[in-house]
Amino acid sequence: MRRHLLSVDDVSREDIERILGRAESFAEVSGREIKKVPTLRGRTVINLFYEASTRTSSSFELAAKRLSADLVSVKSSGSSVEKGESLKDTVQTLSAYDPAAIVIRSPHAGAAALVARWTPASVINAGDGKHEHPTQALLDLYTLRRRVGSLEGLSVWIVGDVLHSRVARSGILAFTRMGCDVTVCGPPTLIPRGIESLGCEVRYTLDGLGEADVVYALRMQHERMKGNFVPSLREYAAQYQIDGRRLGAAQLLMHPGPVNRGVELSAEVIDSPQALITEQVESGVVVRMAVLYELLAGRGAPAAVPAPDETIAPQPA
Amino acid sequence: MRRHLLSVDDVSREDIERILGRAESFAEVSGREIKKVPTLRGRTVINLFYEASTRTSSSFELAAKRLSADLVSVKSSGSSVEKGESLKDTVQTLSAYDPAAIVIRSPHAGAAALVARWTPASVINAGDGKHEHPTQALLDLYTLRRRVGSLEGLSVWIVGDVLHSRVARSGILAFTRMGCDVTVCGPPTLIPRGIESLGCEVRYTLDGLGEADVVYALRMQHERMKGNFVPSLREYAAQYQIDGRRLGAAQLLMHPGPVNRGVELSAEVIDSPQALITEQVESGVVVRMAVLYELLAGRGAPAAVPAPDETIAPQPA
Amino acid sequence: MRRHLLSVDDVSREDIERILGRAESFAEVSGREIKKVPTLRGRTVINLFYEASTRTSSSFELAAKRLSADLVSVKSSGSSVEKGESLKDTVQTLSAYDPAAIVIRSPHAGAAALVARWTPASVINAGDGKHEHPTQALLDLYTLRRRVGSLEGLSVWIVGDVLHSRVARSGILAFTRMGCDVTVCGPPTLIPRGIESLGCEVRYTLDGLGEADVVYALRMQHERMKGNFVPSLREYAAQYQIDGRRLGAAQLLMHPGPVNRGVELSAEVIDSPQALITEQVESGVVVRMAVLYELLAGRGAPAAVPAPDETIAPQPA
Repeated sequence: MRRHLLSVDDVSREDIERILGRAESFAEVSGREIKKVPTLRGRTVINLFYEASTRTSSSFELAAKRLSADLVSVKSSGSSVEKGESLKDTVQTLSAYDPAAIVIRSPHAGAAALVARWTPASVINAGDGKHEHPTQALLDLYTLRRRVGSLEGLSVWIVGDVLHSRVARSGILAFTRMGCDVTVCGPPTLIPRGIESLGCEVRYTLDGLGEADVVYALRMQHERMKGNFVPSLREYAAQYQIDGRRLGAAQLLMHPGPVNRGVELSAEVIDSPQALITEQVESGVVVRMAVLYELLAGRGAPAAVPAPDETIAPQPA
Repeated sequence: MRRHLLSVDDVSREDIERILGRAESFAEVSGREIKKVPTLRGRTVINLFYEASTRTSSSFELAAKRLSADLVSVKSSGSSVEKGESLKDTVQTLSAYDPAAIVIRSPHAGAAALVARWTPASVINAGDGKHEHPTQALLDLYTLRRRVGSLEGLSVWIVGDVLHSRVARSGILAFTRMGCDVTVCGPPTLIPRGIESLGCEVRYTLDGLGEADVVYALRMQHERMKGNFVPSLREYAAQYQIDGRRLGAAQLLMHPGPVNRGVELSAEVIDSPQALITEQVESGVVVRMAVLYELLAGRGAPAAVPAPDETIAPQPA
Repeated sequence: MRRHLLSVDDVSREDIERILGRAESFAEVSGREIKKVPTLRGRTVINLFYEASTRTSSSFELAAKRLSADLVSVKSSGSSVEKGESLKDTVQTLSAYDPAAIVIRSPHAGAAALVARWTPASVINAGDGKHEHPTQALLDLYTLRRRVGSLEGLSVWIVGDVLHSRVARSGILAFTRMGCDVTVCGPPTLIPRGIESLGCEVRYTLDGLGEADVVYALRMQHERMKGNFVPSLREYAAQYQIDGRRLGAAQLLMHPGPVNRGVELSAEVIDSPQALITEQVESGVVVRMAVLYELLAGRGAPAAVPAPDETIAPQPA
């Protein structure tokens, strides 16, 4: 495996299989009362977040802490970013502390690749503008595989605002790599030209959704309304909302969260047993533990079940 | 004891006695150079703060760390709260990480109870709007009991803006539960109707303050002036400020902090030996350690002195 | 050594030699995979930052964590500072948690000395307005000594906005204490009157820069332009920018960062082998570890190489 995880293109099918296997073993650790292994003790992980995030930043934070790493969070507010320090200067400064990994989220496509040029640390792309969000794709694969066993030959429809979605781009690459047939679907204004070159089909209506094994709905960002990409949220919902009428009983439902209830998904499907949304969030920590392990400790070693951290046992009451 | 601490109503007198006893034993730990026990090692505590706070958030943070838990802080600024993610979605997301406890502060009364409905974690109310702030009440009991020995039969006057004060509500419940006689006192515009139903007396002037063993002054929020609850801070102070003239030599003084010097308290009484204000703050960490212990590790076990964390001894210079 | 590090005046030449020696031994620790020693385990360090900072706050945070201390960060945004809590109240509150050290950054000169009056903890000044930034000066000494061996008799020119620079004030004191000859140079509007009393010479042009062994360029703050201290950044650069033409091949270059490229330094000199800028940043963590060690654990003990933290060994893959 490569030194960085900037794109799904950085991981082969074998890398993905190994990461998902490792995540399984971390899921076992996370089921214990002491959810911690000493793997990365004394090593430093930096969370460098230039965008608001609860789930991604906190799941990387917990992943690092459950591997016993020292985590330092740098957010745009309250940091020298306010002083106008450039990304390059910030990265070089942070690199001087010899971190094992830098986890970067940025509103700018390509930011993670730039960071990787400026630091000897392993860089993990936690979302760079409209470009990619590879750990989201890995946790989606992990979640789906846990439910269905094998991904080979599954039909996956990715529905919604594909144009602005880093989740969609990483998802198309990851699902196709694992042997799925991917279709993207949304209003023509929200499907990027040439997206077929990533190996997916394109549809502009939900006709034919019945053929999907998995429906992956994207978050519709309210700010898109201002850009006139869709006439209104109500009209978008009328044509593209996944609801109980459109979603077949045998179809699975995924969404990267947070959901706009009543926009891309109806309330009934969110809470249905077909929805994997909660499992996706739950998978975040163990998959990110597996990615950190793979980049910082694994280097292609066979998946091992980490020993629990029992050097400090919980005291009896 | 219940699974959550949402209100003083969640703890019986026996629960309170046990928590205060446990806090005593943690005070002993806090007096050591290594202020740490391994009790909650490998478990996760989430601080979810939707309001500015130094003392409450940092004291919960330290309490969790001194119990060796992994703490994750989520504050409204820099999180998905800015993206308009609902409290429910945030709580469900964070719950997916299987935290042992979520500590919630919110400007909305009832928020903590909602959080408790949405998560399998233990929920601790760190202040929800005008409703309650039960750990403040517990640390007040702890502080006062340390000074006076027994709380039974003490007369406690709670003075000031009772209407907007979660500290007052939790305090009335807690002091009465421990056998104190509670009187609330303030301008009629700042005393909520029907407050007597909580088991306290109501007074609108400081006449009769001499009968109090303990004067508990509340913080007067400047923003209240805009609501015309009181004509001016100066007029409020003239009628309700606790100063050296009004406070008798044998009376104890408490305040939840931060104090508005010269408004609800005069400078002289703040620094007098009768004031327990510093002790109240000092009690914050050990009482919160005791609450975390009780909810996450104790479950009614008898108060034990935790063993020091000596698996990693400080190295000789 | 004194209990606090508020100013370079708090450390004698012998103290400085000891701190630099200890930093050397921590540099050895930082070169290991497990960059951690148990020295301050169970002790609490509070970062109290009232100004935006990436490098200083994160390097203190890492220094504390690599010494195994519990670190609590309090930043002005999201804390009670927004409620108008005074510095004194905040410090007294935080002191109630019995921290071993408080690291304070403030926009107000003298803030660190005030904090030291209000707390029993050791106080470290991480920059107070235009006054001082002593750990920056110590890491500058450490960086330079590593390159040149001995500081005695070196000629150091500090160039730029001396008036607003806490780095300059601490630097003059520190370099002269170690036997350097210090010259400050900048536009007359940016050189404070009477600065010679600190033991330096004053120049208003770069004529004579050739005699310097070390050129220490200061950051030119854009906001200074509004104050009409210099007519324009372009004019400032024309007269005072250190570039390849002005910097001799045998002269070393230092800068506290972040650099305004093309203002106080030209791009070519920033990346030249004469520049110690990256080494300065790298030195931040180990020098701050040494300062924390000295104040909290050392107390004048001879410099020892700390043992690695091997109680929790990294697990085999």
